[in-house]
Amino acid sequence: MALIVHKYGGTSMGSTDRIKNVAARVAKWHDAGHQVIVVPSAMSGETNRLIGMAKEIMDQPDPRELDMICSTGEQVSVGLLAMALLAIGKDAVSYAGWQVAIKTDSSFTKARIQSIDDTKVRADLGAGKIVIIAGFQGVDDDGNISTLGRGGSDTSAVAIAAAMKADECLIYTDVDGVYTTDPRVVSEARRLKTITFEEMLEMASLGSKVLQSRSVEFAGNYRVPTRVLSSLTDPLMSLAEEAVSGTLISFEEDTNMEQAVISGIAFNRDEAKITILGVPDKPGVAYHILGPVAEANIEVDMIIQNQSVDGKTDFTFTVSRGEYAKAMGVLETVKAAVGAASVSGDAKVSKVSVVGVGMRSHVGVASQMFRTLSEEGINILMISTSEIKISVLIDEKYMELAVRALHKAFDLEKA
Amino acid sequence: MALIVHKYGGTSMGSTDRIKNVAARVAKWHDAGHQVIVVPSAMSGETNRLIGMAKEIMDQPDPRELDMICSTGEQVSVGLLAMALLAIGKDAVSYAGWQVAIKTDSSFTKARIQSIDDTKVRADLGAGKIVIIAGFQGVDDDGNISTLGRGGSDTSAVAIAAAMKADECLIYTDVDGVYTTDPRVVSEARRLKTITFEEMLEMASLGSKVLQSRSVEFAGNYRVPTRVLSSLTDPLMSLAEEAVSGTLISFEEDTNMEQAVISGIAFNRDEAKITILGVPDKPGVAYHILGPVAEANIEVDMIIQNQSVDGKTDFTFTVSRGEYAKAMGVLETVKAAVGAASVSGDAKVSKVSVVGVGMRSHVGVASQMFRTLSEEGINILMISTSEIKISVLIDEKYMELAVRALHKAFDLEKA
Repeated sequence: MALIVHKYGGTSMGSTDRIKNVAARVAKWHDAGHQVIVVPSAMSGETNRLIGMAKEIMDQPDPRELDMICSTGEQVSVGLLAMALLAIGKDAVSYAGWQVAIKTDSSFTKARIQSIDDTKVRADLGAGKIVIIAGFQGVDDDGNISTLGRGGSDTSAVAIAAAMKADECLIYTDVDGVYTTDPRVVSEARRLKTITFEEMLEMASLGSKVLQSRSVEFAGNYRVPTRVLSSLTDPLMSLAEEAVSGTLISFEEDTNMEQAVISGIAFNRDEAKITILGVPDKPGVAYHILGPVAEANIEVDMIIQNQSVDGKTDFTFTVSRGEYAKAMGVLETVKAAVGAASVSGDAKVSKVSVVGVGMRSHVGVASQMFRTLSEEGINILMISTSEIKISVLIDEKYMELAVRALHKAFDLEKA
Repeated sequence: MALIVHKYGGTSMGSTDRIKNVAARVAKWHDAGHQVIVVPSAMSGETNRLIGMAKEIMDQPDPRELDMICSTGEQVSVGLLAMALLAIGKDAVSYAGWQVAIKTDSSFTKARIQSIDDTKVRADLGAGKIVIIAGFQGVDDDGNISTLGRGGSDTSAVAIAAAMKADECLIYTDVDGVYTTDPRVVSEARRLKTITFEEMLEMASLGSKVLQSRSVEFAGNYRVPTRVLSSLTDPLMSLAEEAVSGTLISFEEDTNMEQAVISGIAFNRDEAKITILGVPDKPGVAYHILGPVAEANIEVDMIIQNQSVDGKTDFTFTVSRGEYAKAMGVLETVKAAVGAASVSGDAKVSKVSVVGVGMRSHVGVASQMFRTLSEEGINILMISTSEIKISVLIDEKYMELAVRALHKAFDLEKA
């Protein structure tokens, strides 16, 4: 008997019929003798509907009140799923985040989980019940409802699995695992049976939106074995088969049985690059440029500062394309303040990254990457590296070509 | 400065534009220096939508889980209304029932309020905030969400007004007050400026669906001055005018300034009558007949047992028409058990009642009522009386005629 946490996304919970499918799948695990906790998202479209109404009333909805409203989507889901289980003769009980309680800080709309009380849940499991807990939400010390931000149900599921010391957290979604790259770009892309949590973290933060980055961090910090698998399979497929499907996020580097240097190619099409030229090179210049950008709530990704020449330097950074115009507006003000010569930008750039824990012990990954791109005639605009990742910024029009060439160069189509 | 509770129904909260209207009206009261607590219902249609999904999953939805789901409608309303107030510069905060906390018993879908903690609300009011509390819901001792049943937001509002010792509870609805009878039946029907809570209780329980009966009971038990008034007026109409509009439910008989013997004519078209004939007249016969009916969850209204002849008696009672077939089914079984001769019924009967605290001190109300019906050639099938009400059951086809004749006979069209 194992303790298993299941998480189902909005598409899996998208209609009453789909909820019945989820119930059948959950019941199958329970029937096999496992204790099961289920963390569902809101029915697809519901959160957007609620945010839409809020925005009709307030351009910038008040965060506390927005959480009050948006948390109802998951509350409806848990109630419906509990009923679907009761309807097929399983004992089930649903809880909102505050009922467990899932304690968070008070950063409404992007709260962080601080603690989870497992008393009630453990008693229910002991009594043979299937426990259904609303994802995406919690409660702060003052009893206000909080939400964890978009995709927060993944984080809820992993955090609950950690608090309950679950044997595995199964994230059911509309893809059947993590791929070496996006199969829509490279048809030879291959599903990975395992990936280390560090690689997963890089893949998630680089735009492979299988799991929210924060949930991967949580899985890593608390060493929660987490599996990404499909909710679109027959709910009554054999449990033995289902239990090894998808992609397992592991914490042992040697579980990377495939011993590949590179695990995957991640990419993010919608990047924009901004350069501020001829900045007097004085201490604090980076802060004076990026401080106002951060204050405007614009997330900055890659940052480069050139070698200074004649006491002047150039400073380049990237933002997501949707925030390009806003960032350029901020920079116009900053330009005068820091005494820069000019500001230029390019909103048609993309980021391509090779990711793999194997590169730690293998030299030459960077040179192979750069040679491959060079052979395809692709100019590199910026480079950024971490221990297990090398990212390059390139012209948007070469993105697919770069991904395909790199996928082939690192033999990722081969198991 | 007064402490005022406002309650708004689903129609008043039916769209984001209407919610903005509610906010404008609430702000007007707050601007005039009053402390305001607002109790809104779910947006119209929302509760039915949620129940509909529940029934797609479970024919008889589990009550606890149904409350989990249905309580979200009001939670969305309070959040949106708080935003609408914040958007026009008023300080406002919303609470779900459990956050206040509004404690109830554990009778899910029809819970009763046991206590209300006023600490948080009083602190907010003291800080100048408008406090918005979800109607219709509470929380039981085990932290489960409960709902009060249909129309429960009225009860929430009155109960909160009682707990807070509010100066007045204003129930905003889509009618502009309580009338001497339904204006759709008698065009001369007149709005009452005041009505005693006992009269209101009889009117409410007799099908004048302006206020849920339980909310009137609450108002009566805790002597909460409660006013029914229209939410369809211009939200910016003068506060002086609005404050005396509608109908005030009062607790002093002498506030019945109009000194009328009869306050109104209530009626209920959809009644059905069932007679069980030739029942051996032994102790326990009423119990043996009505026990099984109650067990089948069928509400019985009027009950008559005839004088027994030759040790046999007839027993007649009424149920709402929608439960007629079900009740007849139960009676077929009962018939054999009690040794009755036969069961007969009539599903086309209606109840008409005259209501008024004035009849306590005036003889002759009953005789005037019976004479009026007799002059119209209307046969009386059953009679039932209380201290402030006389009800008769008549053939459905005479209902409008009876109401009009009685309205005129008791001079109700005259102020």
